[in-house]
Amino acid sequence: MNSMAKHVPAESCEERVRRSFDRQQAMKTIGAKLMRVTPGFVEVELPFSDALTQQHGFLHAGILATALDSACGFAALSLMPAEAGVLTIEFKLNLLAPGRGERFILRGSVTKPGRTIIVVDGQAMAVTSDAEPRLIATMTGTMMVVTHRNDVAG
Amino acid sequence: MNSMAKHVPAESCEERVRRSFDRQQAMKTIGAKLMRVTPGFVEVELPFSDALTQQHGFLHAGILATALDSACGFAALSLMPAEAGVLTIEFKLNLLAPGRGERFILRGSVTKPGRTIIVVDGQAMAVTSDAEPRLIATMTGTMMVVTHRNDVAG
Amino acid sequence: MNSMAKHVPAESCEERVRRSFDRQQAMKTIGAKLMRVTPGFVEVELPFSDALTQQHGFLHAGILATALDSACGFAALSLMPAEAGVLTIEFKLNLLAPGRGERFILRGSVTKPGRTIIVVDGQAMAVTSDAEPRLIATMTGTMMVVTHRNDVAG
Amino acid sequence: MNSMAKHVPAESCEERVRRSFDRQQAMKTIGAKLMRVTPGFVEVELPFSDALTQQHGFLHAGILATALDSACGFAALSLMPAEAGVLTIEFKLNLLAPGRGERFILRGSVTKPGRTIIVVDGQAMAVTSDAEPRLIATMTGTMMVVTHRNDVAG
Repeated sequence: MNSMAKHVPAESCEERVRRSFDRQQAMKTIGAKLMRVTPGFVEVELPFSDALTQQHGFLHAGILATALDSACGFAALSLMPAEAGVLTIEFKLNLLAPGRGERFILRGSVTKPGRTIIVVDGQAMAVTSDAEPRLIATMTGTMMVVTHRNDVAG
Repeated sequence: MNSMAKHVPAESCEERVRRSFDRQQAMKTIGAKLMRVTPGFVEVELPFSDALTQQHGFLHAGILATALDSACGFAALSLMPAEAGVLTIEFKLNLLAPGRGERFILRGSVTKPGRTIIVVDGQAMAVTSDAEPRLIATMTGTMMVVTHRNDVAG
Repeated sequence: MNSMAKHVPAESCEERVRRSFDRQQAMKTIGAKLMRVTPGFVEVELPFSDALTQQHGFLHAGILATALDSACGFAALSLMPAEAGVLTIEFKLNLLAPGRGERFILRGSVTKPGRTIIVVDGQAMAVTSDAEPRLIATMTGTMMVVTHRNDVAG
Repeated sequence: MNSMAKHVPAESCEERVRRSFDRQQAMKTIGAKLMRVTPGFVEVELPFSDALTQQHGFLHAGILATALDSACGFAALSLMPAEAGVLTIEFKLNLLAPGRGERFILRGSVTKPGRTIIVVDGQAMAVTSDAEPRLIATMTGTMMVVTHRNDVAG
């Protein structure tokens, strides 16, 4: 640490998550946007699109999983040391109602932080202009804190 | 049912699955193709694309889940009565290795058929030209047989 | 339904759950007791016992799952019609901390009711006399409403 | 390592698993016995008992999970270094048929070994004297390799 370093403020938890989210090309492809970031919590928004549907015209369960896994993974990353990266070990998705809606709000929050393993829970809400937001899916995921690997940072 | 109906051969299990797969816009968006269909088994292929990556450049876990959920769901549909539709109730994905590869082979097969509930298992293999295919993820899913709903057919 | 039937008050949701819980011999074997029952919610208590441990002396993860599955299943049953029975289709358990404690509180609550499928979430707390209760496990389960089967009632 | 150490043969993988299994009081309580152990594979047998039932007289799903989690955990332990201990991070159980049978065979096998995380899959078969063994449940579990902790060895 030299004297110059003092003038470079450490990246905040939110900046770090936003920078990493922006590198996820899959989020651009499905049209998901990062909304809120606080320590241990991340909210993502996904507008409905015909390009994301399954055979009945609902949002594909896997696309919901994609946006929700990102919300959960970045919720975990938000609590990790600056040099660490996050990898999903496993997740489980329960679908409570078909993926109908104008847009979807995906929330991930850390249930149990840890040095190696972080357990996260996620919720997906369907939003339409003429009704209350509706819980349509829940996720539980296990995230791994990865350090000292050049290919897994952030 | 009139006498003409006799001359219209029933759609085969494979035709039915292919027709339903073609209606999944999400498969087109991620570039997944339906390969093999036999009763209780479906294989999907997904070429790697930068558009499908997470922040480290690996295939996003959710995109893998998307293609694998379709393989599993259509494996279930292949055993259902002609008028039934399939909905995913829940699935769990375990990631065994990062999503590196030139293309991915996703296989879904029915572990337990049933009138209302069908349990399926899936495997994801990463394929590169210079190495053996490698198992990178497994899925277990619970699928529901839906009948008498106009919005959920096929 | 004859006139006598009017004089037999319908069994309450709580009475029904308690009667069914009492038929679970596994609960007696592990020493679990039914505490609170409200519509969509059930609380079970399990005292620690050396007879329930794994190799390191912690409560065995499966025993925790046993008590938690009962809490979740009865939470689902509490919302079902009187003639229906409940069967667990699947559950997932995440272990957040080792099963140390004097006793364990297991809570199951219904996240999504339904005519055929009910999704439940559960939490396990470890209680010791000298510390705050601690969350040590979470469960998500999928329960099936079973009707018209003599071997699956209640 | 001194010259004496040469005369003390290292404990075999099987001996180590058997010694650890014998310390699981929960296995005694439910009556489960360790049958076969090979590297990456463990088989446990559980006789049916009224003491292990749920309200319909079937084997309780959680008791099945208990024996299956042990089969899976010890399959993982069988591949670990001698000084390591195993902890279950999470598991998912899918129930394919009610727990009817004279005895149950639980098999755990390692799907993906690893230095920190080991993924295992398990199967439960119901056995009766007058029929073929029947697959009644499957499990996927994530096990953690724990080292340098005195309270978690073996």
